[in-house]
Amino acid sequence: MRALRYHGVKDLRVEHDIPEPKCGDDQIKVKPAFVGICGTDLHEYSSPTFIPSKESPHPVTGESMPITIGHEFSGTVLEIGSKVQTDVKVGDKVAVQPTVACFQCGACQDGFINCCDSAGFVGLSGGGGGLSDAVCVGGEFVFKLPPNIGLDVGALVEPLAVAWHAVDAAQIQKGDDALVLGAGPIGLGVIQCLKAQGANKIIVAEVAKERQNFAKHFGATHIFNPIQDDLVAKCKELTDGRGVQVSLDCAGVAASVKTACLAVRAQGRVVNVAIWEKEVPFNPNNLVFGEKKYSAVLGYQKKDYQGVIKALGEGSMQPEKMITSKIHIDRVVEDGFTPLINEKEKHVKILVDLSA
Amino acid sequence: MRALRYHGVKDLRVEHDIPEPKCGDDQIKVKPAFVGICGTDLHEYSSPTFIPSKESPHPVTGESMPITIGHEFSGTVLEIGSKVQTDVKVGDKVAVQPTVACFQCGACQDGFINCCDSAGFVGLSGGGGGLSDAVCVGGEFVFKLPPNIGLDVGALVEPLAVAWHAVDAAQIQKGDDALVLGAGPIGLGVIQCLKAQGANKIIVAEVAKERQNFAKHFGATHIFNPIQDDLVAKCKELTDGRGVQVSLDCAGVAASVKTACLAVRAQGRVVNVAIWEKEVPFNPNNLVFGEKKYSAVLGYQKKDYQGVIKALGEGSMQPEKMITSKIHIDRVVEDGFTPLINEKEKHVKILVDLSA
Ligand SMILES: NC(=O)c1ccc[n+]([C@@H]2O[C@H](COP(=O)([O-])OP(=O)(O)OC[C@H]3O[C@@H](n4cnc5c(N)ncnc54)[C@H](O)[C@@H]3O)[C@@H](O)[C@H]2O)c1
Ligand SMILES: NC(=O)c1ccc[n+]([C@@H]2O[C@H](COP(=O)([O-])OP(=O)(O)OC[C@H]3O[C@@H](n4cnc5c(N)ncnc54)[C@H](O)[C@@H]3O)[C@@H](O)[C@H]2O)c1
Ligand SMILES: [Zn+2]
Ligand SMILES: [Zn+2]
Ligand SMILES: [Zn+2]
Ligand SMILES: [Zn+2]
Repeated sequence: MRALRYHGVKDLRVEHDIPEPKCGDDQIKVKPAFVGICGTDLHEYSSPTFIPSKESPHPVTGESMPITIGHEFSGTVLEIGSKVQTDVKVGDKVAVQPTVACFQCGACQDGFINCCDSAGFVGLSGGGGGLSDAVCVGGEFVFKLPPNIGLDVGALVEPLAVAWHAVDAAQIQKGDDALVLGAGPIGLGVIQCLKAQGANKIIVAEVAKERQNFAKHFGATHIFNPIQDDLVAKCKELTDGRGVQVSLDCAGVAASVKTACLAVRAQGRVVNVAIWEKEVPFNPNNLVFGEKKYSAVLGYQKKDYQGVIKALGEGSMQPEKMITSKIHIDRVVEDGFTPLINEKEKHVKILVDLSA
Repeated sequence: MRALRYHGVKDLRVEHDIPEPKCGDDQIKVKPAFVGICGTDLHEYSSPTFIPSKESPHPVTGESMPITIGHEFSGTVLEIGSKVQTDVKVGDKVAVQPTVACFQCGACQDGFINCCDSAGFVGLSGGGGGLSDAVCVGGEFVFKLPPNIGLDVGALVEPLAVAWHAVDAAQIQKGDDALVLGAGPIGLGVIQCLKAQGANKIIVAEVAKERQNFAKHFGATHIFNPIQDDLVAKCKELTDGRGVQVSLDCAGVAASVKTACLAVRAQGRVVNVAIWEKEVPFNPNNLVFGEKKYSAVLGYQKKDYQGVIKALGEGSMQPEKMITSKIHIDRVVEDGFTPLINEKEKHVKILVDLSA
């Protein structure tokens, strides 16, 4: 079968002679339809962090480079293992949760497989990937899409599940006001999830003009530029002087930590969604005065996939405009990675269309 | 009456001609018996932060230097205002919650007077202080001590309430293992509150030998020196490889933030009790991988005073040994501040005995 495999730094190859994987008893075999490209793929392309090297294969999959990539994907069901208990049928349109976990460590045993000590992703850690003609994943990781949702939008479920999980951690109460820092793909997902989960004001801090426009489209009620505007003051003005109940850091820069902490009211919640490259200066007093809570989220759980898919089915999230381009598997670098680097602000999600 | 008043940097004076305060309708007048000296007093002595200067009087009390000091105190009730609703009677032994709040800002209106925008303390911000023959405070801030508790131990209720509030924020479930960083007066209080609130292993990190001994006395089950021992590894070893459920930072140094974050398991809780002098390097990824929660606490609420006093009454906390010296009001600097600076590790609480 066809697969896009990562062989090493900047060495991605579309191969046509890859053996099709066998569907295990507890697995479902999926034919990927659309695959989103995300910041992680770009990062791995030039500096592999998740993708295991020959010297240290992934502890769960036992695999190392070359690795098939693509972790944000939808598809149709080709085969269902004999031991799988599911409502999914052959031919169904599905979204796949690409979680790789050991199911043995403390975190896994405690039910937090997204926090597994050996956490990984289908499409980064082995076990196949979305950018191929077939991939087999655990039966519990395959979710049926509602009839009104296209396979292209189905590929957005993964990044939206990250956002859903983050907003869930923020424990939005009806009427809470929120600040979202950063309106990249994740921040835009967070805006939509905030709206779907009942937030009142959705205040967005974003530097790039195009992304501010996307934020507006997806439900931001107030948009500021963190370089020109004093976000902490703006948030207070908009909330009777108190500050917002919740802030979500989807930017991940030193300035965003401080703003996220100072913009919330007493007892407010800061949720960090960003993944960080390095240490940043931090004054815990920004949490002490006001007894604020700072938590961090990673990935998603089954309930987040269910939450997103339900919201999509009901129409309370309409993420279509996140798809800014559809490309061919033979041109992932030229038409995917390159515009995502050079014209970053114009794009939200570029999807690889495997039917093409 | 007699009062110890702060006139400016290193200028503390015992004065004998201070007019006795009048008890308001909604106040209780207390004759202080014992007054604890704490790190804040030491800090204010050489570099006033809380104590308001002539140029900027405290927004709630309207007062500025000279200010009567002493915020950790017990006493006996002299008079009860006509509008006070309380179970306290004249002559009762009481502990005083020295909270100053505006009751008007967002935090106050939302019930978090410890997070008041203009928060202050009796004994630092005006409204009198414990180091005097009489002080009048709001009726709701006076708590009757159980009959088995002496007035000296009554002066420990304030720092113990800080600790109780912190442990409450840590949401200890029966059987949770905890790491306490720093065994100063606050850390030692936290150890006792953890024990009273049902923690299992109480692992303590402390550099000073004498303080390690105090930690042992008050209920630490495992004690390590953070300079010699790898606390994160030790915590994992003691918890089946998972890490503790809770860590409490009562040290407030850059190393303690990192250890506090890394020593907790997936979904674990870090509670910061320390007040910080400056920014420290922080990598939010230390919370991301494991979806950990970092929260900060400040002061206490009525329920914390009630919690401590109940635990003292039942004997589930026995803090007597925290009192390492009792001194005279005329020698607060010589017998109080000086040993607390020069022989810091030997001392936990030095009390001023006003009956002397
Ligand atoms: N927790 C998880 O499981 C998870 C999953 C996926 C991605 N992430 C992380 O989420 C973050 C966001 O992902 P993304 O794909 O949207 O990234 P992105 O880089 O496309 O978006 C970040 C946005 O923040 C904006 N920004 C920069 N400085 C800012 C500031 N001071 N204030 C406000 N905005 C500012 C940028 O203009 C950009 O639009 C990244 O750190 C990524 O690694 C986390
Ligand atoms: N949140 C609040 O309302 C509140 C109230 C009172 C005090 N505080 C703060 O609590 C903190 C503790 O107060 P305290 O009076 O006990 O202070 P302290 O200075 O007496 O105690 C701190 C202890 O930490 C130890 N320490 C230093 N480095 C360490 C490390 N790397 N690991 C472990 N321990 C280390 C020191 O040896 C010392 O014994 C201070 O920051 C204080 O300002 C907060
Ligand atoms: Zn992704
Ligand atoms: Zn695991
Ligand atoms: Zn104190
Ligand atoms: Zn207030």
